[in-house]
Amino acid sequence: MGCMVPQVLKGFRDYLPEVMIPRQRMLRTIADVFESFGYLPLETPALEYAELLTGKYGEEGEGLLYRFRDHGGREVALRYDLTVPLARVIGSHPEIALPFKRYQIGPVWRAEKPGRGRFREFVQCDVDILGSSSMLADCECLLVDAAVLRALGVERFRIRVNNRKLLNGLLAHYGVVRTEAIHQTLRQVDKLEKVGRAAVADLLVAEAGWERPAAEELLGLLAQGSLDFPFTNPSLDAGRAELQRLLELAAAAGITSCVELDPTIARGLDYYTGTVFETVLLDLPGFGSVMSGGRYDELVGLFRSQPLAAVGISLGVDRLLSGLLELGLLPLGRATARVLLAVFGPETAADSVAAAQQLRAAGISTEVHPSDGGKLGKQYKHADSRGIPVVALIGPDEAAAGRVRLKRLATGEEITVARAELAARVAQWLG
Amino acid sequence: MGCMVPQVLKGFRDYLPEVMIPRQRMLRTIADVFESFGYLPLETPALEYAELLTGKYGEEGEGLLYRFRDHGGREVALRYDLTVPLARVIGSHPEIALPFKRYQIGPVWRAEKPGRGRFREFVQCDVDILGSSSMLADCECLLVDAAVLRALGVERFRIRVNNRKLLNGLLAHYGVVRTEAIHQTLRQVDKLEKVGRAAVADLLVAEAGWERPAAEELLGLLAQGSLDFPFTNPSLDAGRAELQRLLELAAAAGITSCVELDPTIARGLDYYTGTVFETVLLDLPGFGSVMSGGRYDELVGLFRSQPLAAVGISLGVDRLLSGLLELGLLPLGRATARVLLAVFGPETAADSVAAAQQLRAAGISTEVHPSDGGKLGKQYKHADSRGIPVVALIGPDEAAAGRVRLKRLATGEEITVARAELAARVAQWLG
Repeated sequence: MGCMVPQVLKGFRDYLPEVMIPRQRMLRTIADVFESFGYLPLETPALEYAELLTGKYGEEGEGLLYRFRDHGGREVALRYDLTVPLARVIGSHPEIALPFKRYQIGPVWRAEKPGRGRFREFVQCDVDILGSSSMLADCECLLVDAAVLRALGVERFRIRVNNRKLLNGLLAHYGVVRTEAIHQTLRQVDKLEKVGRAAVADLLVAEAGWERPAAEELLGLLAQGSLDFPFTNPSLDAGRAELQRLLELAAAAGITSCVELDPTIARGLDYYTGTVFETVLLDLPGFGSVMSGGRYDELVGLFRSQPLAAVGISLGVDRLLSGLLELGLLPLGRATARVLLAVFGPETAADSVAAAQQLRAAGISTEVHPSDGGKLGKQYKHADSRGIPVVALIGPDEAAAGRVRLKRLATGEEITVARAELAARVAQWLG
Repeated sequence: MGCMVPQVLKGFRDYLPEVMIPRQRMLRTIADVFESFGYLPLETPALEYAELLTGKYGEEGEGLLYRFRDHGGREVALRYDLTVPLARVIGSHPEIALPFKRYQIGPVWRAEKPGRGRFREFVQCDVDILGSSSMLADCECLLVDAAVLRALGVERFRIRVNNRKLLNGLLAHYGVVRTEAIHQTLRQVDKLEKVGRAAVADLLVAEAGWERPAAEELLGLLAQGSLDFPFTNPSLDAGRAELQRLLELAAAAGITSCVELDPTIARGLDYYTGTVFETVLLDLPGFGSVMSGGRYDELVGLFRSQPLAAVGISLGVDRLLSGLLELGLLPLGRATARVLLAVFGPETAADSVAAAQQLRAAGISTEVHPSDGGKLGKQYKHADSRGIPVVALIGPDEAAAGRVRLKRLATGEEITVARAELAARVAQWLG
């Protein structure tokens, strides 16, 4: 110890207060919105039996698991997402009554190659409704999505919705019916926004076995943005009916203006079975989706004897945070205190402590400079550099007179007030 | 996959909603109190370089580290506490201005033998003031301690304070001056409340090399509970002066009634250098300390060229939670929603969704039963079993008349109201 160079582990990061303050404010708002819809909080361990997580994320995902042997020789792994742990909870707690609406906010770990905005530890934020196959549940996901963004001050956003059954029906018309072939096609369709229609046509031909005319025709149908197609089949009909019902419920709930049908939305994940959606911020084109999700009726029943209907949202905490910061909707924070009680010297320190308690009792966050006084200029600078708007000082004269000197740093205004008026006056300054 | 038995890892646990609801409420209150004193939030990764954590926790602690090699061959470990990561942050972020007041709430991992109330993953909650050697900082820890408990509804508690310099001065009088000998003695003294004075005297003789008469005399001096001793030395004087100043500041801040000098408090941890304190709930005798801490001026400077003065509090989240639950100060939670919108059937589902949005817009947490209707009895039971106090229903008659049927489950009272009066009426029922 002693002299080693202290380093954060590669691919990991510290959240210093400047980012933590807005981040925490954002996460609280999000949790409040979830609870306003009746979702219940859940927390699961960071570590799980490795065998529980293997076989769930594909070969590539599995290679990213942090796996090791614990002190008892058990093969364990850090969780890779919050979905498989949820499935485990449902399997191991039969007392949980259905339908079950839960949210969980917590870190997950993936040994990805670190890169710009890509970390090996990141926070996931999931809401899911288990045990309901009603479109009311799908619609609720859109309502929660819109409510979260509005609560965070975002007015200009669009939730793009689609349905996997509809897509499957379209693909079936072109003879693409095997699961693997469907996934190969959807993974390419998912790139439409990023690379454009011509490039996706090329990819469908090169990577997913399509004939060019069929690929062009499919992309044309997707691009028209409606539910009218020149052919039909049961899967297409089912998907269309679900989408129509979803849009009808969304309209009743008053969120039509921010929901948009987009038949090109596929969401890469293989496990979606019905509704899929993603959410973009209209003032940050190209930023990507900040909240997405859909129905995945075959995943959460993994550890039960029967499948379990499920629909949910996954919110990218750090992506959304950086979007909100970029839009100026969430200022970086430097202080949690609104007032700094400067300390003149040891003989008046007790008065400062008492005055600070008085302010806190009035609901005003107050920091006492933790020093025995002296260097008042440095203490005022401490407040200024952290964005604490008001400094209060009790020197010997103020102490003798039962008064407090107040300075408003933004304007330089200085006054002295009686101790009894302190909280009221500060509250008035702080607005 | 498929049929494996889903199990939580040995020594770990799930927090189901019933516990998560009060736990989250408690943690929010605690963070709010910290922020009301100007503490800033910080978050560090779960994983650190193993070499950063080794040599810090003694041989026994080090054996409890979850260590492994990551994909890049680095030796890594899950964090064991939040203090060494804080020291690392201070060392790797020279831009952090001092004094620095931070709090961090997060899980730590120790491969302890699992037992009653002992888990391998548990949440720590730390507040620390770095870069101040003023007793104002020590006093602030007591103020925060008291403010947290009061904010959580606890009125009957006692913060017992002592000072390591005082203890060192007392021991020095008996020739106990080597660090290791001091620690051996303090570890026995720390057991006073648990095993009693006679047993500790025996332990001092058997385990810490004391002569019996000296041991009896020491324990007699500690038991008198005052700062008057029949001898003196510089360390004793320094400790006494610090304690007197601390008590004087605590009196000015108005918390005298819950602070008590207790010369027997040693706190087992070897790194304390001055003030030490612990907190007991008077209505739960024998429950142990729920918040403790002290000054440790030699630890946080580990990764800097100079030492860094530090004083802080560590709060036992799960212990405090179980205390609050036992005292009935924090009810178990079953629901986050206050109203359940039952769903009569597909034709009125959209009305239910719209009415729920209306209630949420009025700040009333509302759940829509995620079903396509039918089995109304089951839906009312869903609300009742979760403790949701009000059920609202829109059947075809109510829909046609623009009304909502409301039932208050506690009394069975049922009324119908116009949609426009819905939120006001529910708010009135909910008080």
